[in-house]
Amino acid sequence: MNTIGKILTLTTFGESHGPAMGGVLDGMPAGVDIDLDALQRFVDRRRTGQAAGSSTRDEKDRVELLSGLWQGKTLGTPIGFVVRNEDVRSADYEEISKCYRPNHADYTWEKKYGIRDPRGGGRASARETVARVVAGGIALQALNRLGITIAASVSPICGAADEERLNRVLAEGDTLGGIIECVVKGVPAGLGEPVFGKLHAQLAAAMMSIPSVHGFEYGDGFDMASKRGSEVLDVFEKRPDGTIGTVTNHSGGIQGGISNGEDITMRIAFKPVPTLMREVPTIDCEGNPVTLKPRGRHDACVLPRTLPIVEAMAALVILDNYLIKKTNEL
Amino acid sequence: MNTIGKILTLTTFGESHGPAMGGVLDGMPAGVDIDLDALQRFVDRRRTGQAAGSSTRDEKDRVELLSGLWQGKTLGTPIGFVVRNEDVRSADYEEISKCYRPNHADYTWEKKYGIRDPRGGGRASARETVARVVAGGIALQALNRLGITIAASVSPICGAADEERLNRVLAEGDTLGGIIECVVKGVPAGLGEPVFGKLHAQLAAAMMSIPSVHGFEYGDGFDMASKRGSEVLDVFEKRPDGTIGTVTNHSGGIQGGISNGEDITMRIAFKPVPTLMREVPTIDCEGNPVTLKPRGRHDACVLPRTLPIVEAMAALVILDNYLIKKTNEL
Amino acid sequence: MNTIGKILTLTTFGESHGPAMGGVLDGMPAGVDIDLDALQRFVDRRRTGQAAGSSTRDEKDRVELLSGLWQGKTLGTPIGFVVRNEDVRSADYEEISKCYRPNHADYTWEKKYGIRDPRGGGRASARETVARVVAGGIALQALNRLGITIAASVSPICGAADEERLNRVLAEGDTLGGIIECVVKGVPAGLGEPVFGKLHAQLAAAMMSIPSVHGFEYGDGFDMASKRGSEVLDVFEKRPDGTIGTVTNHSGGIQGGISNGEDITMRIAFKPVPTLMREVPTIDCEGNPVTLKPRGRHDACVLPRTLPIVEAMAALVILDNYLIKKTNEL
Amino acid sequence: MNTIGKILTLTTFGESHGPAMGGVLDGMPAGVDIDLDALQRFVDRRRTGQAAGSSTRDEKDRVELLSGLWQGKTLGTPIGFVVRNEDVRSADYEEISKCYRPNHADYTWEKKYGIRDPRGGGRASARETVARVVAGGIALQALNRLGITIAASVSPICGAADEERLNRVLAEGDTLGGIIECVVKGVPAGLGEPVFGKLHAQLAAAMMSIPSVHGFEYGDGFDMASKRGSEVLDVFEKRPDGTIGTVTNHSGGIQGGISNGEDITMRIAFKPVPTLMREVPTIDCEGNPVTLKPRGRHDACVLPRTLPIVEAMAALVILDNYLIKKTNEL
Repeated sequence: MNTIGKILTLTTFGESHGPAMGGVLDGMPAGVDIDLDALQRFVDRRRTGQAAGSSTRDEKDRVELLSGLWQGKTLGTPIGFVVRNEDVRSADYEEISKCYRPNHADYTWEKKYGIRDPRGGGRASARETVARVVAGGIALQALNRLGITIAASVSPICGAADEERLNRVLAEGDTLGGIIECVVKGVPAGLGEPVFGKLHAQLAAAMMSIPSVHGFEYGDGFDMASKRGSEVLDVFEKRPDGTIGTVTNHSGGIQGGISNGEDITMRIAFKPVPTLMREVPTIDCEGNPVTLKPRGRHDACVLPRTLPIVEAMAALVILDNYLIKKTNEL
Repeated sequence: MNTIGKILTLTTFGESHGPAMGGVLDGMPAGVDIDLDALQRFVDRRRTGQAAGSSTRDEKDRVELLSGLWQGKTLGTPIGFVVRNEDVRSADYEEISKCYRPNHADYTWEKKYGIRDPRGGGRASARETVARVVAGGIALQALNRLGITIAASVSPICGAADEERLNRVLAEGDTLGGIIECVVKGVPAGLGEPVFGKLHAQLAAAMMSIPSVHGFEYGDGFDMASKRGSEVLDVFEKRPDGTIGTVTNHSGGIQGGISNGEDITMRIAFKPVPTLMREVPTIDCEGNPVTLKPRGRHDACVLPRTLPIVEAMAALVILDNYLIKKTNEL
Repeated sequence: MNTIGKILTLTTFGESHGPAMGGVLDGMPAGVDIDLDALQRFVDRRRTGQAAGSSTRDEKDRVELLSGLWQGKTLGTPIGFVVRNEDVRSADYEEISKCYRPNHADYTWEKKYGIRDPRGGGRASARETVARVVAGGIALQALNRLGITIAASVSPICGAADEERLNRVLAEGDTLGGIIECVVKGVPAGLGEPVFGKLHAQLAAAMMSIPSVHGFEYGDGFDMASKRGSEVLDVFEKRPDGTIGTVTNHSGGIQGGISNGEDITMRIAFKPVPTLMREVPTIDCEGNPVTLKPRGRHDACVLPRTLPIVEAMAALVILDNYLIKKTNEL
Repeated sequence: MNTIGKILTLTTFGESHGPAMGGVLDGMPAGVDIDLDALQRFVDRRRTGQAAGSSTRDEKDRVELLSGLWQGKTLGTPIGFVVRNEDVRSADYEEISKCYRPNHADYTWEKKYGIRDPRGGGRASARETVARVVAGGIALQALNRLGITIAASVSPICGAADEERLNRVLAEGDTLGGIIECVVKGVPAGLGEPVFGKLHAQLAAAMMSIPSVHGFEYGDGFDMASKRGSEVLDVFEKRPDGTIGTVTNHSGGIQGGISNGEDITMRIAFKPVPTLMREVPTIDCEGNPVTLKPRGRHDACVLPRTLPIVEAMAALVILDNYLIKKTNEL
């Protein structure tokens, strides 16, 4: 349930205000050099306090690797790791334990488990993603050695990258969502598992599991739906270097669920942060109307911090499929 | 790889021009009455030849159940089934075996497996989905008994439901894509598995695994990305009947990856059918330019036939999560 | 639940007196030549009526392959297959539906599912194993190409191979169990997955899943427990051909859960067939004492028929681990 | 690979001389009270230095729970935990890194991964089992609330429980194996998953995954193989309290792979500890003969320390199947 992947699997744990977040990355190939400083820098990209509109919660996010590496190389054994929760102020959340915040997971978790940890949203907090970034950062280093690179960026379309707009929204105690674009370059043709494990289906599941995501598309995505077949044909060509490729890339690097060697392109839609810095009407656990006053430390827009999370999830999926591909012939 | 689900699992098999398509639906609860006539009618909805623009390949698609039911009830054992391929004309595909059709899976499958079955696209054919509809139809009957209903429809937005436009496109040997909307009603609050198995992540993976899908969104989806947080708050209310619900449903019935009891709404984007009924330039397996002449029997627009596939995939995901929910308390 | 394996997975279905038994073998590498006649001969080894003490139920057991092969080679796609149930006499079982046979699964299946198919034991019948033999026979052909062979034999220790003793027991309406030994030769060093997927743990699970098995051991097995460490050391040596091996093989070819290149040896204990050809006391579903009269067609000793089942299960496990091994390095 | 279970899953990590051992127990039902002191006492049972013949390595084995519990109750979220490795003397192992110890995993791990951590055997060390005991101890507390108890004991048969014999063997620098018996009481009828997930097959896999195990049997086990069917019939009876049970229990509480409500009984055979406290001949990594001198701190007999490991593995399997059982009806 808290595990993703088939050969390369990541299992995560941790509540926002518990002692630590952490995870186990299993199935990493042996003998891969891991640069721990580079890994920490990758994890630092999702830390708060780095841009306008981000939470003031100050976590050091030091990655503590507990197993799976020796003398700088992976052993093939599971890589266990933790990231401590240090700047925790649970008192902020007493009020929240007695009511359901709109667009949060308070109500649904209580319905599911009959119990919930209200401290910082418990495990429903986006703090959970730190474990993904640690594991994805390790996978990414392996991919880089194979010549595969991943780059996510905030799409200018929705204005989430517009700092002036962001400051205006912040001043009004409101929040923004946005779209993140991600490109994976250098993926060899042949990765992906028909029929249920199509590469884009796996990527969709991985991206949709990031908190606040409401939509996923690859290649021309939803625009495909209003085009004619003749308008989106990616015609094959033999290139001067003798390789085969497509002249255009409406397909986003994936055909029939399998990579075709072109850039894999995708876009992920995030809803606005649900916690407003203004009064919000809701109900308490008995159903009585109450007004939520702004409390806690929250992001007005999560997109800049979310870029390494998107890259991490992409890295986990791509490396997993790279490993599965090895089993397709005897 | 050809299996989906955790407790309720579907494993499918079959190539388009092999002897049969089929599957195994495992984990179905015991003692559920299955109406076989209703099941056949559900499967018949995806047959060809029922609307303008659909393929003339005429398959009877009779469902042959081989196990798992006795005296009209599920036994709790795996439900094996086959659907024969009868109207097969493999000769149509000889030319195709020597080249790569654009926007098809010919090239990628060959790169993945080093071998491919060119007859009708082999397993990459959308004929594969018949097994999904059989299994999903069974799951749907169980859901109906629980008061859960699922309805997919072709969105009018892209014109795929516009028969006049479709006929014009057909006459030009071209094809259309479109968007399918799906609503699941009656889902109790509490279904879905944080963190990687969020209900919408599972639905996304299921829908993105349907051939030709390029995008998925739930609730307000991509529109969420350009809204402010204050514009999309689904405020809770206590209803006259004492239950708790939300006044609006921007969240599409899922919050924090778990159902909240509201309607689950989603939209799935399909690319246009890749096989045109006109000449198309491509390359052969050595990279030489060739021209594909229109052959075979294909759909100009798959959306009407795809509705039961979408409903089937939704049913499999929802019933699986309904069963998992039972294990959340001792 | 009805699936075994990680990369190479087998999912089976079928009740003893339903229309057919069958399965889906997924994850088979592509491009492997399969000799269908050899496969049928392998399956024929588990048919009834070939030795003293075997059931008179006469099933042709013709393997019908439905997918996954083309022009004699595997496609990399799932291999679906069925074996029809033809010689079914369900009337024999009407009495059984109203009581619980000792040492059978009647009572436990009813407790588990709230319903059971009494016809021939339903899915609890050993007829279920025919699907294993089909799939294992395919896996075995792939292993043979890699120079790996598997041979099971009935151990002389318990007398199950003694035809005179068997005839005496038969005459008294009684039954026998026995021990099957299995040796796998040619397995390269390095197969098996620590810590929970130790090669012998996977083999144990596979063998213990065969009906009637009550014990499993590998190498010196239970005898190890009464030896001193100095008595069972498999000392390493460098052989004339430059390879490394062990002088003795108390470890049964597996050390630390991973194959070491020596022969893999194991022994599997089977209980006597539970259905006696004499009157047996039991209770009906209300708990009233009743006497079971001998009915149906049953084996007095299953061991000779079980040899291909043991080989099939070994083949599935070994090939799966051979494929997993490919993912241990980048 | 390092994960066991279906609904209730345990993933472990850690090398013997790395910073810590640990694991993630996922799928634990929510709202279960956990007594942390009782858990620590359970874990303490496998610590060294408590009996003649056990290693002098002194680990405190303090369980540090990092997530999944709040206010003494499980949250339904994954329970992450670590146990630090504190008394590590890696210098002892420099010699070992250059040769292969007989009956150890040095050679096989190197063949599998192309690299191995020689410090204390790395992940192949039995120290790995501490994580199993932590997780199993939590599962056991849940089972106890359901009235299910588990007790393992050292069988007197092989002399491993005979302290005088043990001291004699110790004095000679030799080691012992032995047999552990385990009884699970109070299991309701109906647990276990035919056909591949038979309850005894799952138990076998779990027990065979414990280091040094060479055999597993349940009920009358290997003795069954030499009995006639009439000698081992567990005849049903209606008991004075109205329940149904069997007069004898040759079947060990499992019939057709499903629990029948009787005591579940099993026996697990352990090989002698492979590390002798005397000189042992072997080869170095180039194949040259070398003599291993006794080094490190090792057990002469692991059985007393292994009892909680056996109980833990049994607890994990039984609770997992208890949860799966809930999904068998709608």
